[in-house]
Amino acid sequence: MNTTLSPMLSVRRGKDAVAFYEAAFDARVLFRLDGEDGSLVAQFSLGKSQFWIADESPGHKNFSPETLGGATTRMVLVVDDPDAAFARAITAGATEVVPLTDQPYGWRVGRVVDPFGHHWEIGKPLSS
Amino acid sequence: MNTTLSPMLSVRRGKDAVAFYEAAFDARVLFRLDGEDGSLVAQFSLGKSQFWIADESPGHKNFSPETLGGATTRMVLVVDDPDAAFARAITAGATEVVPLTDQPYGWRVGRVVDPFGHHWEIGKPLSS
Repeated sequence: MNTTLSPMLSVRRGKDAVAFYEAAFDARVLFRLDGEDGSLVAQFSLGKSQFWIADESPGHKNFSPETLGGATTRMVLVVDDPDAAFARAITAGATEVVPLTDQPYGWRVGRVVDPFGHHWEIGKPLSS
Repeated sequence: MNTTLSPMLSVRRGKDAVAFYEAAFDARVLFRLDGEDGSLVAQFSLGKSQFWIADESPGHKNFSPETLGGATTRMVLVVDDPDAAFARAITAGATEVVPLTDQPYGWRVGRVVDPFGHHWEIGKPLSS
């Protein structure tokens, strides 16, 4: 069974989002489709995982966090060095929501919101 | 580098959502934490990927699609047999948004919305 699941984030300013996700998370563009209307769809690799972004299209029920005033999915990003990854995201323009801390449930984790309104939990299990 | 990215879906009625995602997508519970207040966090495996669900907590900026009136992320579910996967999701209680069709960009894909308001694109590249 080759089943895989990848999130597709709806955003405004998709072209800017590509540059941000490259800088913030070292995501690599695997595929990019620029529409004639300026809209964009892009697929990224991020370590062992993949994700997509697409300019929002509310008529097709694809809403950006800016349009809805919040996000309905968080991205859980597990990395070897959460401190470095967290700092890199902030430097690239993300905003801290919860600082990186060792949690009683056994993870070192923090949370940022990116300039497009998507939230990222960055961390790793403390045992690893 | 062991970086992985997994989405965490905010939902209402988290306990019901566990049963739905098991039935609809054959997701397997890896971890489950039931809070004293009835709220739930659960981690699933789904083929080679993982995802999480958690009861919403708007005070912590975790909003369900029911609360915001839409979803800000779609789940792209790639499977060997999209027709079977699509039918299984519908049988479990998902609602068709876009029927399964062969698309000019080289995918067979369709879209459903689940009872918790999250949208799933189910498909595979036509070349595979």
